[in-house]
Amino acid sequence: MTYEIALLPGDGIGVEVVDATLPLLEAAADRHGFSVETTRYGWGSERYLEEGSMMPDDAIETLEPYDAILLGAVGHPDIPDHLTLRGMMLPIRKAFDQQVCKRPSVLFEGVESPLRGYEGGDIDFVVYRENTEGEYADIGGHEHRGYGHEVAVQTAIYTRAGTEAIVRAAFEEATERDGHLTNVTKSNAQAYGMVFWDQVVEEVAEEYPEVEVDRLLVDAASMDLVRRPDEFDVIVASNLFGDILTDIGAIVSGSMGLAPSANINVEGHSPSMFEPVHGSAPDITGQGVANPLATVLSVSMLYDHLGEEAAAADLWDAVAEQLADGDAPRTPDLGGESGTTAVVDDLRSRL
Amino acid sequence: MTYEIALLPGDGIGVEVVDATLPLLEAAADRHGFSVETTRYGWGSERYLEEGSMMPDDAIETLEPYDAILLGAVGHPDIPDHLTLRGMMLPIRKAFDQQVCKRPSVLFEGVESPLRGYEGGDIDFVVYRENTEGEYADIGGHEHRGYGHEVAVQTAIYTRAGTEAIVRAAFEEATERDGHLTNVTKSNAQAYGMVFWDQVVEEVAEEYPEVEVDRLLVDAASMDLVRRPDEFDVIVASNLFGDILTDIGAIVSGSMGLAPSANINVEGHSPSMFEPVHGSAPDITGQGVANPLATVLSVSMLYDHLGEEAAAADLWDAVAEQLADGDAPRTPDLGGESGTTAVVDDLRSRL
Ligand SMILES: CC(C)[C@H](C(=O)O)[C@@H](O)C(=O)O
Ligand SMILES: CC(C)[C@H](C(=O)O)[C@@H](O)C(=O)O
Repeated sequence: MTYEIALLPGDGIGVEVVDATLPLLEAAADRHGFSVETTRYGWGSERYLEEGSMMPDDAIETLEPYDAILLGAVGHPDIPDHLTLRGMMLPIRKAFDQQVCKRPSVLFEGVESPLRGYEGGDIDFVVYRENTEGEYADIGGHEHRGYGHEVAVQTAIYTRAGTEAIVRAAFEEATERDGHLTNVTKSNAQAYGMVFWDQVVEEVAEEYPEVEVDRLLVDAASMDLVRRPDEFDVIVASNLFGDILTDIGAIVSGSMGLAPSANINVEGHSPSMFEPVHGSAPDITGQGVANPLATVLSVSMLYDHLGEEAAAADLWDAVAEQLADGDAPRTPDLGGESGTTAVVDDLRSRL
Repeated sequence: MTYEIALLPGDGIGVEVVDATLPLLEAAADRHGFSVETTRYGWGSERYLEEGSMMPDDAIETLEPYDAILLGAVGHPDIPDHLTLRGMMLPIRKAFDQQVCKRPSVLFEGVESPLRGYEGGDIDFVVYRENTEGEYADIGGHEHRGYGHEVAVQTAIYTRAGTEAIVRAAFEEATERDGHLTNVTKSNAQAYGMVFWDQVVEEVAEEYPEVEVDRLLVDAASMDLVRRPDEFDVIVASNLFGDILTDIGAIVSGSMGLAPSANINVEGHSPSMFEPVHGSAPDITGQGVANPLATVLSVSMLYDHLGEEAAAADLWDAVAEQLADGDAPRTPDLGGESGTTAVVDDLRSRL
């Protein structure tokens, strides 16, 4: 079996962590009797600065045949974020209908949480974030520029298809975990989109009587991820709310450098995309100290998605083992002094 | 000088904390040579259950002549939140054009933060939240109910007037504090509303060259309030983002029971409203253990707004002193075993 994987390292430390992770990706495949062919596309902000666009016009057609995509990070200090993101990451999520964004938050043994009283092993939840519509819909406008009656409009869209896809995926995950789903909305203040969302959750809940469903408002949920993160199992939320909650989840679990994610095309007709949650981090680019672990965990999720559970588990376990080992190399974001390569070499020896 | 203050205790512990705070409100006025006439309106969810509406039809006309409004909390377990809030709190904010919501986050001496390494005195920032439009605009709809092509739409509106009002208020505050403003948006994914907001911030910034302005995306800001809350001074954000950030601010500062807020009519033609950030807390209602401190601090903000700075400072200092005193009574949310009355009595003795 050979999988074709498109690599989109992107910008800044995105390039560093993707390149560093490749040997592990191959080693895990070797050990489990399958092979991987990777093709690297150097799209991103450098291209934008030279040619005026992040990706070529046929980027989506080019990526379509792949079994999966591994993305590094996108973002450049000289280009407004809405141009870089809307030029690369967001169009891929949409073009391949990657409706489900899955982001685990795990406080690994050996990692310190910024929260008092939480030790490795205490936090383990997963956020299912709607990924192609909601508050990120590209709908809106801006009128009367510069006048007193100037107004800008930003419209969120919640379709039944999009909402059901994410809600159903979250319920499925809950049946495989502890059977506890938290639905996060802001229905008290957003009586159209969010009230509809709650209705879909109630409908789908009837198909999963074994799953216990809680409701939280996004403000209370943001607070509760700080107050009692150990009590969450599966969280389901809209695009924007999932974005916020997963960043809080990442920090209470110790570091943004440990947060992986999967952008999943549920129907399987187009490739899914895997990426660390962190950004391009221009401040540390080029120093060789970027934490590669979120990317390694993202590759684990990629293999899991392709059905290569054993290879996925190997990579995940190697990361967990390394973090639990007080003598293993660590990057500065985790309080260590090692570089990217030392961390990857150590992981390789654990595979 | 006599001020007329409308009391809207509302629901649940809202009633308990407002009633408990009245003696302090009067004592502070007495000491500083002004007087206060309060009128109590029993509007809220009980009324909704009996008469079908949270407030009478002429509620806004009734409140209009007051110098200020003190609100407790709104919310009832038997009524969907969007009905209670849209029946009372949100219409008041809008009818009186309370465009500026000011919410301080202070980790007082003697209060434990859930964050490792943070001690009393380490956290002290204030969020300026846009309060009458943005993502809470009552604009949207829901079509094709029950069909596969069902869709719900929720539209956010950012006017120049609303955006300038909050941004300018935040810059003013920054000039009176440490001169550091953090502008929180999500411009990389919301290219209409949030990009407009950023433009207004850039324009207004030119009038305040002495204020240093940072930009953060809301996901990063949510994370940073956990990672480095001590580095913030003034934060300015939209209605929804301010809502989320102030809840995170409340928890990192120790307890939702300590978070006050002001909803300010900037032009002064209509009353401003002051309220604790916490909700009606049906789970502890009737037990006499609700923490009154957020309400006392809200009364302090009310007096400050009316120009009674000395009375405002007295109330604020009494709370700070009580919290710093390890032998003073505390409610259970702060790890104590005292009730609402004991806390208020102790405060009274400190005035
Ligand atoms: C960069 C940004 C558009 C993106 C998002 O909000 O989706 C990022 O924050 C993420 O969480 O993947
Ligand atoms: C109850 C709710 C509508 C309200 C809001 O979001 O404004 C509350 O969360 C607050 O922060 O005052």
